[in-house]
Amino acid sequence: MPSSHRFRPLPLFAALLCATAAVAVVPAPAHAQAAAQDTAERPKTTQELIDASTPGDWRRPDPGNTLYMELEGGRVVIELAPDFAAAHVANIRTLAKQGFWDGMTIYRSQDNFVVQFGDMVDEGGTPRPLGEAKASLPAEFSRPIEGLPFHALPDADGWAPETGFAAGFPAARDPATGQAWMAHCYGTLGAGRDSAPDSSTGAELYVVTGQSPRQLDRNITQVGRVLHGMELLSVVPRGTGPLGFHEEASQRVPIKAVRLASEVPEAERSDIQVLRTDTPLFDAVVESRRNRRDDWYLQPAGHIDLCNISVPVRTAE
Amino acid sequence: MPSSHRFRPLPLFAALLCATAAVAVVPAPAHAQAAAQDTAERPKTTQELIDASTPGDWRRPDPGNTLYMELEGGRVVIELAPDFAAAHVANIRTLAKQGFWDGMTIYRSQDNFVVQFGDMVDEGGTPRPLGEAKASLPAEFSRPIEGLPFHALPDADGWAPETGFAAGFPAARDPATGQAWMAHCYGTLGAGRDSAPDSSTGAELYVVTGQSPRQLDRNITQVGRVLHGMELLSVVPRGTGPLGFHEEASQRVPIKAVRLASEVPEAERSDIQVLRTDTPLFDAVVESRRNRRDDWYLQPAGHIDLCNISVPVRTAE
Repeated sequence: MPSSHRFRPLPLFAALLCATAAVAVVPAPAHAQAAAQDTAERPKTTQELIDASTPGDWRRPDPGNTLYMELEGGRVVIELAPDFAAAHVANIRTLAKQGFWDGMTIYRSQDNFVVQFGDMVDEGGTPRPLGEAKASLPAEFSRPIEGLPFHALPDADGWAPETGFAAGFPAARDPATGQAWMAHCYGTLGAGRDSAPDSSTGAELYVVTGQSPRQLDRNITQVGRVLHGMELLSVVPRGTGPLGFHEEASQRVPIKAVRLASEVPEAERSDIQVLRTDTPLFDAVVESRRNRRDDWYLQPAGHIDLCNISVPVRTAE
Repeated sequence: MPSSHRFRPLPLFAALLCATAAVAVVPAPAHAQAAAQDTAERPKTTQELIDASTPGDWRRPDPGNTLYMELEGGRVVIELAPDFAAAHVANIRTLAKQGFWDGMTIYRSQDNFVVQFGDMVDEGGTPRPLGEAKASLPAEFSRPIEGLPFHALPDADGWAPETGFAAGFPAARDPATGQAWMAHCYGTLGAGRDSAPDSSTGAELYVVTGQSPRQLDRNITQVGRVLHGMELLSVVPRGTGPLGFHEEASQRVPIKAVRLASEVPEAERSDIQVLRTDTPLFDAVVESRRNRRDDWYLQPAGHIDLCNISVPVRTAE
């Protein structure tokens, strides 16, 4: 492994796993070394904040609302969002218990947009039976503000009057309409639909792999977010058909299984922890991203967009 | 090829090639078919605008400022931006003419951030000589507003007082400081640097493959943008080392050559056209993205962020 990299643009806050430090190893100039000796005199960096976190700053997602998508390359861990889409999440839980997606494929990968997977009901085959799952669900594009604790961000957003985090998910809301909704950021899981707003069942799902398509907000039901393993989805070769559909079956990525974590033996579960988004520490992390304080940045932005905030995730010690 | 897809989130405006229509093939409900019969009565969709474009709405990038990066999987076409980084672009042109990057690798791929390529000078090897290129350049993080025609977008942006397009590139500016700069959107090409602002030469370059890292704006020199072939870079397997560096040489993606288009025989050039960003048609395209008018969208956003606008690209007829 290289010991040093003459490097460059410092990263977005990447998923932190097992305390792997996501910092560039660069020769520190003298003034930087001096600064590092007394961090009390300057705002902490994101890494310093994470290093100083306590167990109470983290949460373990409910296994009953966590999906494991098992691919040849490894496991994608997804947190479902019953607070935003109760009916769809219930259906997805039912489908997962039935092994509905086992043996299906990721059959679409559109550059800078989404991957999509599930039952390809229009490809001429016979749709797989939904079993105990419902064949028709209400659209769940947004929900009432009331009853949903919302941790607002300080910066203005062009897509919505307010943005922040709710139930750990990037979210937005509009006091004028009294509605809140999940925001389409990188890693968002949504339920594909036809033109009819209530035509999604959760049997076909997509994950955002490109620039946050916020124009989809309030136009489709979002059901969760990838917590771990995005790098298995983001590299799926782009399909050459219209909209990135894979034209040949051989291009599709097989799905070995999609299971609820609660249905998996404990010893086989991924012990994931997610930074809570309703704490003073999280506010400090956001501020450390709004104004980078490491030695590389010369011009702090004084701003951050909702979808530029990656909520830190780690595996348990 | 599938004739129909029961789908879902309509795409960001994808690169248009050879007039391949990037529209979902879904059964159109009766009211939609009626609407389609009289498009004069409603705002045009992006596709309708593109279909109605004239040759003057398009431009051909200058071959003297166009790079071809030849990979095993195909060609990445990059437009250089001398209006933003004259010294770096001159150096990069010199390096390309010398075949500087030929046989090097893409040696970093960090999920939701960047790929990086060039000379790995800290890996223990001997740096490749820069030849006629300069070993030291000024930082070119921004430039004077004066002398740079700027086509502003209608929406507010959290990262900069004004955003829009300049010389065909996504850009921002601040009348208070009198400075303009290129914005870090998907596909942006930048020149890696160390902690010292003037430590980039263009020998090591990165391309944005993730959510627009606008916090890098005004902190590093941007030198161009990928026009075609992003799907060859965006799927590079993510490196498992810190910051996405590839830990094993076998994981790196070989670069067969990086050449200036003007140095390539005409018959081997990619005949790329890019939609001009300073025309009434472009304004209409932006408006069609701010408020989607197809039958799928129920709730037009009334907004678009700079980096959600993909400038259409096509190959010549």
